[in-house]
Amino acid sequence: MISSEFTKGLLAEGRDTKILMVVVDGLGGLPDPRTGKSELDTAHLPNLDALAASGSCGLISPLGPGFTPGSGPAHLALFGYDPWKHQIGRGALSAMGLGLDFRAGDVAARLNFCTVDDQGWVTDRRAGRIPTEKCAELCEKLASIRIPGVEVCIAPEMEYRAAVVFRGEGLEDEVSDSDPQVTGVPPHALEARVKGSARMVQVANAFLDQAHQILRGEQPANMVLIRGFGQYPVLPQMGAIYGLKALAIAGYPMYRGVASAVGMETVETDWHLDRELAVLQARWSGCDFVYLHIKKTDSAGEDGDFSRKVSLLEEVDQYVPKFLELKPEVFVLTGDHSTPSIMRSHSWHPVPLVLHSPWAMPDGLPGFSERHCRAGSLGQLPSTAVMALALAHARRLEKFGA
Amino acid sequence: MISSEFTKGLLAEGRDTKILMVVVDGLGGLPDPRTGKSELDTAHLPNLDALAASGSCGLISPLGPGFTPGSGPAHLALFGYDPWKHQIGRGALSAMGLGLDFRAGDVAARLNFCTVDDQGWVTDRRAGRIPTEKCAELCEKLASIRIPGVEVCIAPEMEYRAAVVFRGEGLEDEVSDSDPQVTGVPPHALEARVKGSARMVQVANAFLDQAHQILRGEQPANMVLIRGFGQYPVLPQMGAIYGLKALAIAGYPMYRGVASAVGMETVETDWHLDRELAVLQARWSGCDFVYLHIKKTDSAGEDGDFSRKVSLLEEVDQYVPKFLELKPEVFVLTGDHSTPSIMRSHSWHPVPLVLHSPWAMPDGLPGFSERHCRAGSLGQLPSTAVMALALAHARRLEKFGA
Repeated sequence: MISSEFTKGLLAEGRDTKILMVVVDGLGGLPDPRTGKSELDTAHLPNLDALAASGSCGLISPLGPGFTPGSGPAHLALFGYDPWKHQIGRGALSAMGLGLDFRAGDVAARLNFCTVDDQGWVTDRRAGRIPTEKCAELCEKLASIRIPGVEVCIAPEMEYRAAVVFRGEGLEDEVSDSDPQVTGVPPHALEARVKGSARMVQVANAFLDQAHQILRGEQPANMVLIRGFGQYPVLPQMGAIYGLKALAIAGYPMYRGVASAVGMETVETDWHLDRELAVLQARWSGCDFVYLHIKKTDSAGEDGDFSRKVSLLEEVDQYVPKFLELKPEVFVLTGDHSTPSIMRSHSWHPVPLVLHSPWAMPDGLPGFSERHCRAGSLGQLPSTAVMALALAHARRLEKFGA
Repeated sequence: MISSEFTKGLLAEGRDTKILMVVVDGLGGLPDPRTGKSELDTAHLPNLDALAASGSCGLISPLGPGFTPGSGPAHLALFGYDPWKHQIGRGALSAMGLGLDFRAGDVAARLNFCTVDDQGWVTDRRAGRIPTEKCAELCEKLASIRIPGVEVCIAPEMEYRAAVVFRGEGLEDEVSDSDPQVTGVPPHALEARVKGSARMVQVANAFLDQAHQILRGEQPANMVLIRGFGQYPVLPQMGAIYGLKALAIAGYPMYRGVASAVGMETVETDWHLDRELAVLQARWSGCDFVYLHIKKTDSAGEDGDFSRKVSLLEEVDQYVPKFLELKPEVFVLTGDHSTPSIMRSHSWHPVPLVLHSPWAMPDGLPGFSERHCRAGSLGQLPSTAVMALALAHARRLEKFGA
């Protein structure tokens, strides 16, 4: 509902104030049952704790209570787009993030290099996390795939991940994944969820057959899994609806994809925080809004590595003063979703948020954590409300009505 | 909106985890002005207090701020159905709960045996709460009612309550109640809210005229009030949308009615907690989801009997360890609505909720009450969000989007 108000363009008002939104992927967690403390409770976070005292805090939910988001919907929500309404396949996000030539009518999908046994059953869904260089080499081999009437374009992403774009007549994206999500089983057969996607299934099966022939002699990456079919998305653009010149700094391509889909300029960088900070410092003066993405916290959570997530949060904390040195009128630090280490996966739990600005109610909270933030003055909010709050605190929203 | 995501069936994922939802009718209350303590504050609830420390808490609202629900909408919301969209007349719920032959096209209504004076004015809306046996005897007498072109089927419910099903051409349910809700006035004349319900008004008036003739010699139950006209409802079924094999254990027929309408299996039992527990223990292994309804707390609230409601809450508390012994992956205890004893009626006040699961944020609250639960990590939620939370904590919801 809120997004639709923006899309009418009624409320965005030009100003020269700046917003910095730092998204710590998988920020929220759950207590380790042995200590009763979450990752945020456990970490030593002097700078974030100070922000929780001087800024406004709350808990945000990307999809509403109980629903666990993927990274795409979680980020769309943070950028103010209803994630139930605007759905983008992960393949589409990857393709955009990698800067592949991807246009209206194309269908993109995500590839995972994997290991299969002699029967073709999956033994490792990530092929031992092959290095990105190996991935690039294998993608070059797959470039020899030929499908009549269809252009195929493949690009390596990180480690075992790649993306593919299919261009041709009659391609639609309602296709299930071949990735079975577990090992010890064969890949799933692709299925068209609607009639119109039958052609895409044929094309993707032809692609998989040829990939199997090309990769069969490789070890450990002797096959690919395909998933997240998605057409080129058409979304309202941030520049138009918010009046912001927006920049995305994200080391990981998929997040550049979603940022690009909503009209942000993207910069290629690696995902080390000092590199992302350097880009931020270099580009800050030319932007109204910067989204800076920190990936590794989520990976630690997904790996179930509680103490690594704690260390990474402590690393993020050390960067907070550097972010504030840029003197953004609004500094928002939050996560796209929670990734509790004890669950080893994304979850539905609401995500802590702190917003620092001269116009923010100083909550005086004793620290920055899931527990403390639930007592914050912003309360429990849908993630889609964050952009409106950021714009408001930047004095970039007009009064509604006379 | 969230319900509609379920109805697409996209997100329900099969698992073998179990959910136990205990609904304490009219759970929420308000402080007695003399003590400043609500029923929950006053009751000694060691087991519920322990749950409020180890589980996640919140406050739920069946219809949104300010709206007081009847039992039907309040339960539909708890089961995840938008209660504004899916409206079921109370008569329809009663008819289903009583196992009456009730089909598409039929209209059911609820009957209250009442006492009227010589002028026909209502002196007791419940006819002194006649016993259920007397009610059954009077229903048999009413079975002699004949209306041309219409089949009439009557069944006793509890005490002074009964249900009637009308079957015939052109019957619609947009008819007002004859129950005036107060004494010292005549019953209301029935009115058709839409043109199409004129026939139903004729039929119901013929029914009331004959009932008056049949009952005029009885004391105290010498008349009936009719209310809650409702057509046979067609609702999405829980098995299809949530992938749950669901069982309802409710001593009171109307609650079996609403459970049945959403596709739960229902068991006839009486409403004593030890009987309901015995059914639960016997049927637990064969179900994914059990809804167990506790009625008497609401009755105490409606009677304005604060201390009886306190005692009944203490009785519920004693059953909590027995519920937990079944080791449900998710244990939810909440109410359908509040029934503050000082108001002697249902109210709009949000209802405390506790959710216990290995994946629940332990809120560490000092106790289970209206005041404490508002500091819980689940925040203030629509009741329709409870099923999504229960399914999420049972790891029965897929991630949405990549």
